[in-house]
Amino acid sequence: MYPFTDGSYAPRNGWYVAAFCNEIGDALLSRWILNEPVVLYRKGNGDAVAVQGRCPHRHFPLGASRRIGDTIQCAYHGITFDAAGACTFMPSQEHIPGVYSIKSYPLVERGLWAWIWPGDPALADESLIPDMNEIGLTLPGYHARAMFYHHVEGRYQLLNDNLLDLTHLGYLHSSSIGTPDDAATPEEREVTERFIRSRRHMRDTPRPPVVDWQSDFRGRIDRTTGMDFHFPGFHAGLADVLIAEGQPGAGELLRSSRVWHAVTPARKTTTNYFFGMAERDLNILDAAEVYLKPVIEEDIFATVEIEKIISALDVVPPELKLKSDGTAVLGRRALQRMMNAELT
Amino acid sequence: MYPFTDGSYAPRNGWYVAAFCNEIGDALLSRWILNEPVVLYRKGNGDAVAVQGRCPHRHFPLGASRRIGDTIQCAYHGITFDAAGACTFMPSQEHIPGVYSIKSYPLVERGLWAWIWPGDPALADESLIPDMNEIGLTLPGYHARAMFYHHVEGRYQLLNDNLLDLTHLGYLHSSSIGTPDDAATPEEREVTERFIRSRRHMRDTPRPPVVDWQSDFRGRIDRTTGMDFHFPGFHAGLADVLIAEGQPGAGELLRSSRVWHAVTPARKTTTNYFFGMAERDLNILDAAEVYLKPVIEEDIFATVEIEKIISALDVVPPELKLKSDGTAVLGRRALQRMMNAELT
Amino acid sequence: MYPFTDGSYAPRNGWYVAAFCNEIGDALLSRWILNEPVVLYRKGNGDAVAVQGRCPHRHFPLGASRRIGDTIQCAYHGITFDAAGACTFMPSQEHIPGVYSIKSYPLVERGLWAWIWPGDPALADESLIPDMNEIGLTLPGYHARAMFYHHVEGRYQLLNDNLLDLTHLGYLHSSSIGTPDDAATPEEREVTERFIRSRRHMRDTPRPPVVDWQSDFRGRIDRTTGMDFHFPGFHAGLADVLIAEGQPGAGELLRSSRVWHAVTPARKTTTNYFFGMAERDLNILDAAEVYLKPVIEEDIFATVEIEKIISALDVVPPELKLKSDGTAVLGRRALQRMMNAELT
Repeated sequence: MYPFTDGSYAPRNGWYVAAFCNEIGDALLSRWILNEPVVLYRKGNGDAVAVQGRCPHRHFPLGASRRIGDTIQCAYHGITFDAAGACTFMPSQEHIPGVYSIKSYPLVERGLWAWIWPGDPALADESLIPDMNEIGLTLPGYHARAMFYHHVEGRYQLLNDNLLDLTHLGYLHSSSIGTPDDAATPEEREVTERFIRSRRHMRDTPRPPVVDWQSDFRGRIDRTTGMDFHFPGFHAGLADVLIAEGQPGAGELLRSSRVWHAVTPARKTTTNYFFGMAERDLNILDAAEVYLKPVIEEDIFATVEIEKIISALDVVPPELKLKSDGTAVLGRRALQRMMNAELT
Repeated sequence: MYPFTDGSYAPRNGWYVAAFCNEIGDALLSRWILNEPVVLYRKGNGDAVAVQGRCPHRHFPLGASRRIGDTIQCAYHGITFDAAGACTFMPSQEHIPGVYSIKSYPLVERGLWAWIWPGDPALADESLIPDMNEIGLTLPGYHARAMFYHHVEGRYQLLNDNLLDLTHLGYLHSSSIGTPDDAATPEEREVTERFIRSRRHMRDTPRPPVVDWQSDFRGRIDRTTGMDFHFPGFHAGLADVLIAEGQPGAGELLRSSRVWHAVTPARKTTTNYFFGMAERDLNILDAAEVYLKPVIEEDIFATVEIEKIISALDVVPPELKLKSDGTAVLGRRALQRMMNAELT
Repeated sequence: MYPFTDGSYAPRNGWYVAAFCNEIGDALLSRWILNEPVVLYRKGNGDAVAVQGRCPHRHFPLGASRRIGDTIQCAYHGITFDAAGACTFMPSQEHIPGVYSIKSYPLVERGLWAWIWPGDPALADESLIPDMNEIGLTLPGYHARAMFYHHVEGRYQLLNDNLLDLTHLGYLHSSSIGTPDDAATPEEREVTERFIRSRRHMRDTPRPPVVDWQSDFRGRIDRTTGMDFHFPGFHAGLADVLIAEGQPGAGELLRSSRVWHAVTPARKTTTNYFFGMAERDLNILDAAEVYLKPVIEEDIFATVEIEKIISALDVVPPELKLKSDGTAVLGRRALQRMMNAELT
């Protein structure tokens, strides 16, 4: 499936964001994840859990069912499952066959996010969850916030591609967070087993609109932007702005944001998309939540419009690649490798 | 096609409900039946008829056409067909080729229903229509009424499965017509060539909410529920409630309803669903029409939600069956046998 | 694909109407044409152009992008193309690979229409555009107008079939422009390499409602109707009404219209449909625009309803043909021949 090989959809053995922690509570939360219906909820002891969202008896949605204590009772015929997936009650018979159970997903809350492992539970190594220090969540003096959840009508890799190529900042987001220099500036890249890091250092460069909104400074700036793609679906980014050399206050940090985008396949051509960020000032963070809402919607617009075009065509035409696609190409290859490994 | 074998959709040689009799009048009524567009109307002499709903010339919908006397004139090019399907007028030529005709379906009005035979007309034996006495329509002192027609966005067998397994009464309908005892009570079953009968006799059992609404009695009751599935798509049910032993008035009949559900495939994953019922008291019948509307909608909700899940999955996972699925399994087998017989 | 052979969709080597000239201006106009997204706009020098509507980099819609001078800058990553399809700017690199371009379509404005050639540009011979004299656009004393553009949810050949068989005038349009005589009158036909001409001369015939609306005459009339189908997608028609013999004023021309229908495939089962017409009197033309709006919508209704039926059926049943289908059959054959020729 574009842009992967035929039959390749998404890696299953990896940690994806299932929800922001603050989305999970007593109520049953339904969400499609890697083309499976999943139900998330928080047990009485506060632990978040994720189980199969489809009753194995007649396929009724367990997310539209009833929570009884820490169990879910199917709202159709009353069959009841605990948070580990074991059947605990059958209204019509006393003996519960051992085979009667639903899938329970490894789920770990870390940082703002609840991480799910859709693949083989035996491989669900928590050390593979992105490091909270490494992604910038624990920076002293920063306030982090879960901001937006969107269900996007486009395949997930379109959002990954978006985040793997920040040359779009000065075009798709020209009225807010980017300038043409985002594309014109050479990219520095670091590739590890677990992530791809991309950075751009712009020196003595014009201010994008977002800076004027946050500060009174009207001169030229130094700017660093970048994104780390932690496979298979998490992007940790930064945007730092300083007063450029040769001006009063040179080197002063005018703005410093950390952003986190989580991209989790929902169904074949739909995606769960989570955006969070951190600022040093809570007032700025409040204002950023308002300011960035339409910016994120621009990325969603691009995703949805591209999905409409490629899903209408009998065959997706080959892409004409640029040098700036290098990071996206590496990102796709990393996912393709994960998918290939799961086939063997 | 789930839950039948690949390629099996629905038996064609059988009587299905096409409409309630009172839906058929002078106006042309369009309805998809077994994936064919059908038009129903009542001739000048009062006879209800059903003909192909697609003009054989250019596929225009005859249900969106014009009735002229007992004929239908296609609203596109004016070709006209009588109630037997014969072409009676061609605006552009005088000679009408003998081949020019549309399908006319055997249609019989019996009880509240107009029964259609979508398959080979030569096999349309009226004696195969469910017996009106046997289904309880003719019980002395009961008032019968055609209540609800729904076009349901789910495949028909999901509704048959629903009606073949009344253990759902105490769960899907826990706020109205069932209690957990519906599932906990052993089922008595009788299988004939033409129907499957299921009964549950609950002795000294709690009252479901529906009883409180109909009577002032607040003690324990005896309750009998059951459904007869007349192949391929008609379910005749009953619900009788008596004062349980050991109480004043023991054995008094507090409530006695007869219900009829007709399930007719519309398109591949949509269904025509007809609900009617009888009560001994017209006031109760009026009130039941209000009371049962949301109950029927619960069944439709289950059907639609299950359809969404199974149609989203590449492969429908196998069901984990219970002992209480026995009747549904027999019902599915009966239909599969009918379909297999039509292939040979 | 019905009504053509499997795999046959539409001829590509032919002139289709992409837009009315007056739809094309400074703003980018997006339109699907033969299952390709296309963008139309007018350059600074006034020339209308049509280019591929999909950025070759990441498939973003160029019609939702930004016009800069005579170029389109993709609103996603800023890659820029001129009206000939050549890439003129890449934000992230200075060297532009020669291969980097988009398709530019031959586009010619003639009459009310901008004609596009979706196929091999080397074959785009302007002399194949319908002759403006021949279609009646240049008749002295007539005022022509581009009236309606519709995006129709039905495959294009249903609209061609509609226009190739005017026996529908007295039925689908019985309340406006036709009478039963349209179908009852023998058709005269002329077939050339480039078009099929159909005419009907009705002598001493009743007035269709449209005549009463335009004139005070209440007697019998002579009427000539007809349509020329210029392959692959243009229909030029006429409707002349005269006072019939034996009445005062016999031979007086009561009404004379020229109509043009352009039918351009959009996606597989949707169509771009353009209607224009000419009258001798501007007041009549204004009134006709109001009068004919619901008439055109009747044709669209037929198209959409037929599409619903045939797209619902697993297999489109064979049509039962009439003698009056002769012109439509020839029209289909002409298109099938064009498609077959493109395969070799």
